[in-house]
Amino acid sequence: MSILVLGTVALDTVKAPSGARKDMLGGSAVHFSMSARLFTEVNLVAVIGRDFPQKHIDFLEKKGIILSSLIKSEGKTFKWAGEYKDDLNSALTLNTELGVLLDFLPKVREEQRRIKCVFLANIDPDLQDHLLTRMRSPGLIALDSMNYWIKHKREALLRLLKKVDIYVANDREARELSGETNLIKAAKRLRRFGPKMILIKKGEHGALMYSDKFLFSFPACPIEKVIDPTGAGDTFAGAFMGYLAKAGRLEEKTIKKALAYGIVAASFNIEGFGLDRTSCLTRHDLENRLVQFRSLTL
Amino acid sequence: MSILVLGTVALDTVKAPSGARKDMLGGSAVHFSMSARLFTEVNLVAVIGRDFPQKHIDFLEKKGIILSSLIKSEGKTFKWAGEYKDDLNSALTLNTELGVLLDFLPKVREEQRRIKCVFLANIDPDLQDHLLTRMRSPGLIALDSMNYWIKHKREALLRLLKKVDIYVANDREARELSGETNLIKAAKRLRRFGPKMILIKKGEHGALMYSDKFLFSFPACPIEKVIDPTGAGDTFAGAFMGYLAKAGRLEEKTIKKALAYGIVAASFNIEGFGLDRTSCLTRHDLENRLVQFRSLTL
Repeated sequence: MSILVLGTVALDTVKAPSGARKDMLGGSAVHFSMSARLFTEVNLVAVIGRDFPQKHIDFLEKKGIILSSLIKSEGKTFKWAGEYKDDLNSALTLNTELGVLLDFLPKVREEQRRIKCVFLANIDPDLQDHLLTRMRSPGLIALDSMNYWIKHKREALLRLLKKVDIYVANDREARELSGETNLIKAAKRLRRFGPKMILIKKGEHGALMYSDKFLFSFPACPIEKVIDPTGAGDTFAGAFMGYLAKAGRLEEKTIKKALAYGIVAASFNIEGFGLDRTSCLTRHDLENRLVQFRSLTL
Repeated sequence: MSILVLGTVALDTVKAPSGARKDMLGGSAVHFSMSARLFTEVNLVAVIGRDFPQKHIDFLEKKGIILSSLIKSEGKTFKWAGEYKDDLNSALTLNTELGVLLDFLPKVREEQRRIKCVFLANIDPDLQDHLLTRMRSPGLIALDSMNYWIKHKREALLRLLKKVDIYVANDREARELSGETNLIKAAKRLRRFGPKMILIKKGEHGALMYSDKFLFSFPACPIEKVIDPTGAGDTFAGAFMGYLAKAGRLEEKTIKKALAYGIVAASFNIEGFGLDRTSCLTRHDLENRLVQFRSLTL
């Protein structure tokens, strides 16, 4: 099964202890695509501005990402600038320029409306909802969001959660939206908001997944040289959803393997700036690190 | 192999969101013993005051703990009072009364000096060092400490680390003593201080173990109803060391299983105040939860 992902395409500026980069290709939909492409065909739904460099479009095409629903609008591409201090666990946002995101209305090609596997990467929940109404009969819908929408568009987000199968959140977002500190309690509360499965990303501490039928808890791949964690969560989601879409099943064993691929893919992402590591990644690299990952845990 | 543990026997007063308890039996050596006893004979080296209730001594004896090196001194038993807020991850110390700890010099019986497996639970590093000089030829020495000693007796602690095989620390202590934020870097730096193995406890996020030959990372058992985490680290260490002592081997497979027992034992500890859960625990309970634990991870 192929995947459709709605999200942002951005130009990211990042400061970190190991260096700095300006206007790198980034955004939730791009990071997601870069790992999901290792498993299946990825259709990207997003907007860019007139200033968006052609080399980035060429790059995405070369990586096999379907760009027929990538709109080029009047105005400037979405820009994000952030800084990581020593602990590298959370970014301090220095600047956000929404640009073309402000007037964006996602469009999908007629032939894309029948895609069964949909990932609503972090973007305004109204846009996520709009995209969903365009799809014919999606079989698996996952949604990611962020603290900004939890705070400012809580009601829209809660309405949307009733329509999705998997809610993907980091630990802070899960705590904030649920009002529960304990992550198991948080997952159970979020489950009651609608999604059948709750996937909580814990950064360097791995991930936790909850449904009425199972609870999984995985550590992360220990990485010594963390360069830039930007996009790690989307890279995780890309490999997770990519594997599920390819497998075409939602058995517990399949979900566990998808989680492992997600964790392994994210561990590559953080080893370089932006897409440095994930853009050259092969399935073979993933498989090799998966073997390592298995050996270091229970 | 039997185990000898040096540490504190305390009267703990705990406030937590689910209630409060006054003067419960606690202390690092007691929590350690309560899980280690499930695997092997435990010899406790500690001090209590004249005020120490006989019922606690009877209780420890009934649990099979060897108390021949538990000294009763003039003065009051060590008391600790702490509070846990909503997140239950770290205690706020409300009060500490050192009492008989101030003049304590650990003594071991002649027949205990040949015990091969030694755990130096959290207590003044000078006392830990003194105990070590009393042992004839220990085969496996592990040491736990705390932020207070890292700050105030750093040199003594560093000298001591050269003599031990396993340094057990929580993530904050590992970061503080090593000066490294990344836990893999922290473990590598701590390795250079002397101990062949570094075991970092991460509370709700599991544990990480490093040596020149291996790196293990385990998640924790997800527990929804955390009542009182006091002593979880010592309970972890007790089951970990207890299993190693019983196995009498230090193969990677053995160490992995010991880690799993440690994590499972700690998950029981936090489900009740003080020793409520661990005092009734059986090997059968541990085995059952170990099966559950395996099913929720990779």
